[in-house]
Amino acid sequence: MGKPTVAVIMGSKSDLAVVEGAFKIFAEFGVEFEARALSAHRTPNEVTEFAANAEKNGFKVVICAAGMAAHLGGVVAAHTTLPVIGIPVASEPFNGLDALFSMVQMPPGIPVATVSAGKAGGKNAALYAVSILALSDADLAEKLKKFRSKQTEQVLKSDRELQEELNLKRI
Amino acid sequence: MGKPTVAVIMGSKSDLAVVEGAFKIFAEFGVEFEARALSAHRTPNEVTEFAANAEKNGFKVVICAAGMAAHLGGVVAAHTTLPVIGIPVASEPFNGLDALFSMVQMPPGIPVATVSAGKAGGKNAALYAVSILALSDADLAEKLKKFRSKQTEQVLKSDRELQEELNLKRI
Amino acid sequence: MGKPTVAVIMGSKSDLAVVEGAFKIFAEFGVEFEARALSAHRTPNEVTEFAANAEKNGFKVVICAAGMAAHLGGVVAAHTTLPVIGIPVASEPFNGLDALFSMVQMPPGIPVATVSAGKAGGKNAALYAVSILALSDADLAEKLKKFRSKQTEQVLKSDRELQEELNLKRI
Amino acid sequence: MGKPTVAVIMGSKSDLAVVEGAFKIFAEFGVEFEARALSAHRTPNEVTEFAANAEKNGFKVVICAAGMAAHLGGVVAAHTTLPVIGIPVASEPFNGLDALFSMVQMPPGIPVATVSAGKAGGKNAALYAVSILALSDADLAEKLKKFRSKQTEQVLKSDRELQEELNLKRI
Amino acid sequence: MGKPTVAVIMGSKSDLAVVEGAFKIFAEFGVEFEARALSAHRTPNEVTEFAANAEKNGFKVVICAAGMAAHLGGVVAAHTTLPVIGIPVASEPFNGLDALFSMVQMPPGIPVATVSAGKAGGKNAALYAVSILALSDADLAEKLKKFRSKQTEQVLKSDRELQEELNLKRI
Amino acid sequence: MGKPTVAVIMGSKSDLAVVEGAFKIFAEFGVEFEARALSAHRTPNEVTEFAANAEKNGFKVVICAAGMAAHLGGVVAAHTTLPVIGIPVASEPFNGLDALFSMVQMPPGIPVATVSAGKAGGKNAALYAVSILALSDADLAEKLKKFRSKQTEQVLKSDRELQEELNLKRI
Amino acid sequence: MGKPTVAVIMGSKSDLAVVEGAFKIFAEFGVEFEARALSAHRTPNEVTEFAANAEKNGFKVVICAAGMAAHLGGVVAAHTTLPVIGIPVASEPFNGLDALFSMVQMPPGIPVATVSAGKAGGKNAALYAVSILALSDADLAEKLKKFRSKQTEQVLKSDRELQEELNLKRI
Amino acid sequence: MGKPTVAVIMGSKSDLAVVEGAFKIFAEFGVEFEARALSAHRTPNEVTEFAANAEKNGFKVVICAAGMAAHLGGVVAAHTTLPVIGIPVASEPFNGLDALFSMVQMPPGIPVATVSAGKAGGKNAALYAVSILALSDADLAEKLKKFRSKQTEQVLKSDRELQEELNLKRI
Repeated sequence: MGKPTVAVIMGSKSDLAVVEGAFKIFAEFGVEFEARALSAHRTPNEVTEFAANAEKNGFKVVICAAGMAAHLGGVVAAHTTLPVIGIPVASEPFNGLDALFSMVQMPPGIPVATVSAGKAGGKNAALYAVSILALSDADLAEKLKKFRSKQTEQVLKSDRELQEELNLKRI
Repeated sequence: MGKPTVAVIMGSKSDLAVVEGAFKIFAEFGVEFEARALSAHRTPNEVTEFAANAEKNGFKVVICAAGMAAHLGGVVAAHTTLPVIGIPVASEPFNGLDALFSMVQMPPGIPVATVSAGKAGGKNAALYAVSILALSDADLAEKLKKFRSKQTEQVLKSDRELQEELNLKRI
Repeated sequence: MGKPTVAVIMGSKSDLAVVEGAFKIFAEFGVEFEARALSAHRTPNEVTEFAANAEKNGFKVVICAAGMAAHLGGVVAAHTTLPVIGIPVASEPFNGLDALFSMVQMPPGIPVATVSAGKAGGKNAALYAVSILALSDADLAEKLKKFRSKQTEQVLKSDRELQEELNLKRI
Repeated sequence: MGKPTVAVIMGSKSDLAVVEGAFKIFAEFGVEFEARALSAHRTPNEVTEFAANAEKNGFKVVICAAGMAAHLGGVVAAHTTLPVIGIPVASEPFNGLDALFSMVQMPPGIPVATVSAGKAGGKNAALYAVSILALSDADLAEKLKKFRSKQTEQVLKSDRELQEELNLKRI
Repeated sequence: MGKPTVAVIMGSKSDLAVVEGAFKIFAEFGVEFEARALSAHRTPNEVTEFAANAEKNGFKVVICAAGMAAHLGGVVAAHTTLPVIGIPVASEPFNGLDALFSMVQMPPGIPVATVSAGKAGGKNAALYAVSILALSDADLAEKLKKFRSKQTEQVLKSDRELQEELNLKRI
Repeated sequence: MGKPTVAVIMGSKSDLAVVEGAFKIFAEFGVEFEARALSAHRTPNEVTEFAANAEKNGFKVVICAAGMAAHLGGVVAAHTTLPVIGIPVASEPFNGLDALFSMVQMPPGIPVATVSAGKAGGKNAALYAVSILALSDADLAEKLKKFRSKQTEQVLKSDRELQEELNLKRI
Repeated sequence: MGKPTVAVIMGSKSDLAVVEGAFKIFAEFGVEFEARALSAHRTPNEVTEFAANAEKNGFKVVICAAGMAAHLGGVVAAHTTLPVIGIPVASEPFNGLDALFSMVQMPPGIPVATVSAGKAGGKNAALYAVSILALSDADLAEKLKKFRSKQTEQVLKSDRELQEELNLKRI
Repeated sequence: MGKPTVAVIMGSKSDLAVVEGAFKIFAEFGVEFEARALSAHRTPNEVTEFAANAEKNGFKVVICAAGMAAHLGGVVAAHTTLPVIGIPVASEPFNGLDALFSMVQMPPGIPVATVSAGKAGGKNAALYAVSILALSDADLAEKLKKFRSKQTEQVLKSDRELQEELNLKRI
């Protein structure tokens, strides 16, 4: 097992359901990652330290998943120049609109690139990290292209199934 | 001039128009304050240090004004147990809804008490700080009651003027 | 049992699920509180009277939890100079956005400091009240710092558990 | 000049631009009204007293115009059983969405009937008051029907003008 | 049984759960009403005819409950000068925000007075109708005042119960 | 000049700025249209009559532009089986969100197909009408394809200009 | 079985619950359709090809149902001059507001006409397609008028049932 | 001048004001870029072709700025595995909320990483692209760290100026 190149920080262990989609993608691509449950507000020093040392520790991308006033991505981005990817996690009662605004609307100078809210975001954050890593890893680039082809195939397969089901109904 | 008991941090000097209302209130009440323009994202260490030392430096309340993904209040609150008051600053294009959600929706454990967005918030944050300080300062408590009476008088005066103007029109 | 220093008013007994988080915090900190179920609209005289006498009766902070057109905090704040903390309660169909706007957007002159909507707000309102009381109660200030450390420890423990669980899966 | 049957309360004299549309309607219909600039938060006792005595003083309908956390209608409705009409006033930065939610979302038991936000609401609140008064005033009922016919005529006239203008352009 | 003075139109029989709260209020007050399930879009002629004849048929107030693009109130108001009360009904996926905007934002000249969305609105629409009818029915006015007193008593009773429950827990 | 096949109804003459984009498209395509300024609420009978006779009078498509509680499209669609296209017009203070919801969220059974809000919608409504008419008018179908090609050419031209401007700056 | 004139594309097979309402309408009207499950993002070439050939293949209308960043309608419209009807599909956590904006707000030049979100939209999209096809198919036009009459009858029947149920309760 | 590694595509030349902030950052960092004004809807083939060949042509990152139903980023991402960064451009009347949702809410499988709306986004998209390129360009990584330090210095300088200005006022 090599050294992890992606860090996945979730603001609370309860965000696991959202980031597990990312873990599956990394497993599929053979990308080593480290997962942490650290809160920007309840463990600010640990988050700061993690972010400040992330590059030195060999990370290339940091994924942050958080809900409510989702400051995690912003706090991490303030302490590292690595690309930070934000996943807005939906929670009661504002259903992720609070997290989306808190993540995406970073002031000029410190970007956090935000992906879809919720489970779609878990998967997409990982795929985005892979696309970044693939820029300097031909092997990974190849895998990403294959993943895309397979994904296309799956949609086309489900399209054929749909048509068959509908044709059966009509007969 | 005594030592300041209130810190007013704005995320950017451009938020001055919003916090000036707070300065006027503090001048009216004779409350000493220190004003800073520090960004949670562009000067994270200075914000952290300021917050971590705020209590030791004699501050009793910290007011944070910020726009967009307004993390300032949350970052300060993560490093101090002093009461933190947040003022959401409106900016293009989401008109402060982003800042409101980013400030008010703090996760359980680290509160930021948020007041009205924009200029009304500048004034109200200061009045709220005064109400907190007044709990252990009988003089200030008295001034706050007088401020309220005067405020009531002003509304009643404007009410009388309205009625006179309307009566003149009808004659 | 001493005299309560915090009043917790909920607009309806059905808001109990939200404010119970506050009760637990107060129990943990040994802060005496009085809880009331009074409606700004259905019992306006009782709310007004309670607010007008709150200071005289020894209260230092008033917490108001309400849903829909959540006027409770504003009505209380209009009749007292004590700090008022608002908790927006989510209800069908607008999920607390109505309550958030009704609480936080107080006009200049009469602030209500608003915390997170829903259960997170119940806990945070109490912690904010504690942070205000702690300004003149060294004991409470100490307890708040310990609470924060313990809270940090809990997050770090859950972080370690997460890593162990993930490591087990990978082996 | 008879005794006023409609009270128009605005939360601040700055709401005059919105309620002037109501004044014009009342002038057109010969409905006597009293206009007040009273704040639910800065002059709560005066608002309460006005509402509590409104019926005794001969009022039949109370119109309340307010912005931000627009509690005025709710506070008035809590102290009178007269029909209360609310006009949400738009203000920076949330453009009246705060006022709309604060007015319309009254809890079960104490209704405030809300009309359009802003200037359209000024006119409509007055017309609604007229429609209520007209239920027991045959003269007013007749005037309201004529107003409607005239209004229809004006739209049809503007429709004819539009068609003439467009025909001229095409020739 | 006398002639109904209030018409309650719902856009679809599925809105019954919302308007039943109105029926209960009318039963409690002894107000006769007629309930209809008519759609502004699927039965436009019947709605138009009903509205155009409402006054002649002895109705004094028309309540309209509808969801989605809730045009019902506006279509009725366009064909009668009687006061029209709108209840926004929540439905998937926009949870009544569509219905609220469609009802409350009537253009200048044709008001629809809108009450709370959903079940609270069912009850409040009926109470508002009662408050209008009470202007020329001293008996009803008396009943409304008693209803309010009883309502206040119920809140105060639930307040006492809350305090007893909490006291039991503390002992 | 032939008989108009498209009717363009605006809720008020003030919506002209939005629908003029439609007029230009119709002029460019040689599509005859009739423009009306009729209000669903202030001239309900005329709107109903127009809609009920639209098909008989040779219209094939009806475009409705309206703001606020934009019922116009729904009222027209209730009285005709012709395709109705809705243009939400933005107005103070809710900037067209009210009109969008009021138009697009038609209940099952009576559709109004809605295009972009504001000026973009004026142009797009006309192009959509053209696409419908083109189904049975080969000439118009040809013109629409040419319009699209020209539109593509214009974007590509502006793309080339952009690159030239940027290259000049860099030299 | 004739050649299909309507294409129904859903962005994912999971949108089937929404578009089945369209299938029922087409079955009722005897309109042949082809249903596809193609993603604008995961099968872009197939979507492009389908759209580019849709006219040639005999389609007259294309219905696109999609959720989240619902680009499907826009991508199809970019490659065909046939009328495109969009159905916003609601999904977690933003409940279709994302899909509505992504569909309806097409830039000037390439319209997508959008119907109600969710299941109501499934039915309405099909009825809208029928209304377009009916312009050159007298038979279909007749069927649409009968459908409308039957629909009116059903509402009136449910109205009579409501009144009977309520009358039974009152006796 | 080397070969460009970043492509900046704007949906319309009118988005230039937003992306110029990106150009300045690239100039400051010496990053070669190619700027294009291509519409996902009006020039779909050119966008598709550009995206499909982007990697082959040496690009490493693609930035897409678009307003309204901002499909540009999604269409590009569908045809390349390079990282795509989206900038939501605000436009009338929905102020960029439409563009934000259309960009960020990509379905699982095809991510677009979205930065702040408007001008802040122009600058942040470029800085994010730099952070990606810096992963395999030590020189750029160094420049990014210096940029950050300089940025911190600027905020601290503006903080000192603020304090001097306020001190002058107080004396």
